[in-house]
Amino acid sequence: MECRHETRIRVRYAETDQMGIVYHANYLVWFEVGRAEFMRARGLPYPELSAQGLELPVIEASCRYRAPARYDDQLTVATALDLLRSTRLRFRYEVYRGQKLLATGTTEHAFVNRQGRPVNLAKKKPELWRQLERLLGTPAGEGKP
Amino acid sequence: MECRHETRIRVRYAETDQMGIVYHANYLVWFEVGRAEFMRARGLPYPELSAQGLELPVIEASCRYRAPARYDDQLTVATALDLLRSTRLRFRYEVYRGQKLLATGTTEHAFVNRQGRPVNLAKKKPELWRQLERLLGTPAGEGKP
Amino acid sequence: MECRHETRIRVRYAETDQMGIVYHANYLVWFEVGRAEFMRARGLPYPELSAQGLELPVIEASCRYRAPARYDDQLTVATALDLLRSTRLRFRYEVYRGQKLLATGTTEHAFVNRQGRPVNLAKKKPELWRQLERLLGTPAGEGKP
Amino acid sequence: MECRHETRIRVRYAETDQMGIVYHANYLVWFEVGRAEFMRARGLPYPELSAQGLELPVIEASCRYRAPARYDDQLTVATALDLLRSTRLRFRYEVYRGQKLLATGTTEHAFVNRQGRPVNLAKKKPELWRQLERLLGTPAGEGKP
Repeated sequence: MECRHETRIRVRYAETDQMGIVYHANYLVWFEVGRAEFMRARGLPYPELSAQGLELPVIEASCRYRAPARYDDQLTVATALDLLRSTRLRFRYEVYRGQKLLATGTTEHAFVNRQGRPVNLAKKKPELWRQLERLLGTPAGEGKP
Repeated sequence: MECRHETRIRVRYAETDQMGIVYHANYLVWFEVGRAEFMRARGLPYPELSAQGLELPVIEASCRYRAPARYDDQLTVATALDLLRSTRLRFRYEVYRGQKLLATGTTEHAFVNRQGRPVNLAKKKPELWRQLERLLGTPAGEGKP
Repeated sequence: MECRHETRIRVRYAETDQMGIVYHANYLVWFEVGRAEFMRARGLPYPELSAQGLELPVIEASCRYRAPARYDDQLTVATALDLLRSTRLRFRYEVYRGQKLLATGTTEHAFVNRQGRPVNLAKKKPELWRQLERLLGTPAGEGKP
Repeated sequence: MECRHETRIRVRYAETDQMGIVYHANYLVWFEVGRAEFMRARGLPYPELSAQGLELPVIEASCRYRAPARYDDQLTVATALDLLRSTRLRFRYEVYRGQKLLATGTTEHAFVNRQGRPVNLAKKKPELWRQLERLLGTPAGEGKP
């Protein structure tokens, strides 16, 4: 993974379940933390996108669980941009405890306006689109689909 | 508890923690389900209050945990109005598994408008206020503080 | 989807986010409710599997979000067995509001023992394995991959 | 608050609700993070207590919400020991955004063994009890009830 951003997460008691491991849905929440920090690190924090009338609801999510995370673990969430199109983008994630890979996943997001309508960013908000292209560091459409 | 409403809840795996019992914060979520059903049963469902520009954010919450709830338990959440004032209201709750009382709690709510500002309902929305008084079945201010 | 089980879910306020729609990770929790009811309806409730020393941790999960669910929506989660092997099984899910399909998804589960080790159910617990085959209603390995 | 520990929390999107503010139950989760870091800072991390057969389930929790926290806020959770007895302890919490106090709360915890039975720590585990007394920095029973 090149151009990825790493975020540290400490597992909360609330995130465990009675199997003694982290409940699987929480990885999607960690992915959210990962991409928020990825965007912030690139100068495009979510609240600013939102202030510009752009929301990025999740339209697809997936996760493969290889080994369980446990209470109090210190994890690293590595986030990378996987795809950038004028109507959507996709991130991919790897969750590590030390060197051990615990999980991998992806989330795909639509570009929508405040009313929740899909927008073609290149057409409707060309300035923001160029900023995204430039800051996210991949020419549009170069991600591996 | 007179004039209370009973709602059934089935404990989700997601709600357990590694102690093998329900994580304590989830009781507040069940209280939310309890008061939503209480309000619906009285003809004042939350979405309708919201449509009239009224929100009821929680300003205080408390819970006493007497015995743990466990995965797959079928619980009863008994909800009653505890206090009704022109600026706020309070509910109280009891959580049972069968006859066994597992937890008791309260939540207090401010009346706020869409902008999040506190409102004196009796003054600002007298019609809605009279409706609340009538439907919630207790004369305003008669709850046990 | 044949042989599927339908469960009713009411969206909780806790499940919404500031976009005014359900936060995406909660669909995985609803899937959990869906398969729990699926298994219960077939006479194999989770607590009984657990009592027999069998756990079914999620090893893969995916969800496609087509249209947002909102607070207080009454949803139907339709659950079907997608695959049954001696070491794992897979469910698939559809979430509806009325006739409208909101989301589809899958979860895959390993068979593990109390120590969290993978088990070949057909070899290690043949009786439970035959029960699973019979009750889940599909000959092993006949699911559409 | 003397002898308190401060932890930093960044608000997650998952923690917001459709009112555009943090859903109230999440403060209890932040309190959990606060006391975990409090204990770690005093050399008594939760996993070590658990390894010694001691669990601290919540028996009472309360929270007053003064001003809403919002997505992406950086918060400080200040945690202090409020009471230490041989059968239970209590923490109190303050949540700040910068200098602004957003919420205050308490949690009370029983000492229980692995089987979930209450234990008198001073009698059953005198060494751990003395360690707790010493490290938590308040003579037993001196907290303000």
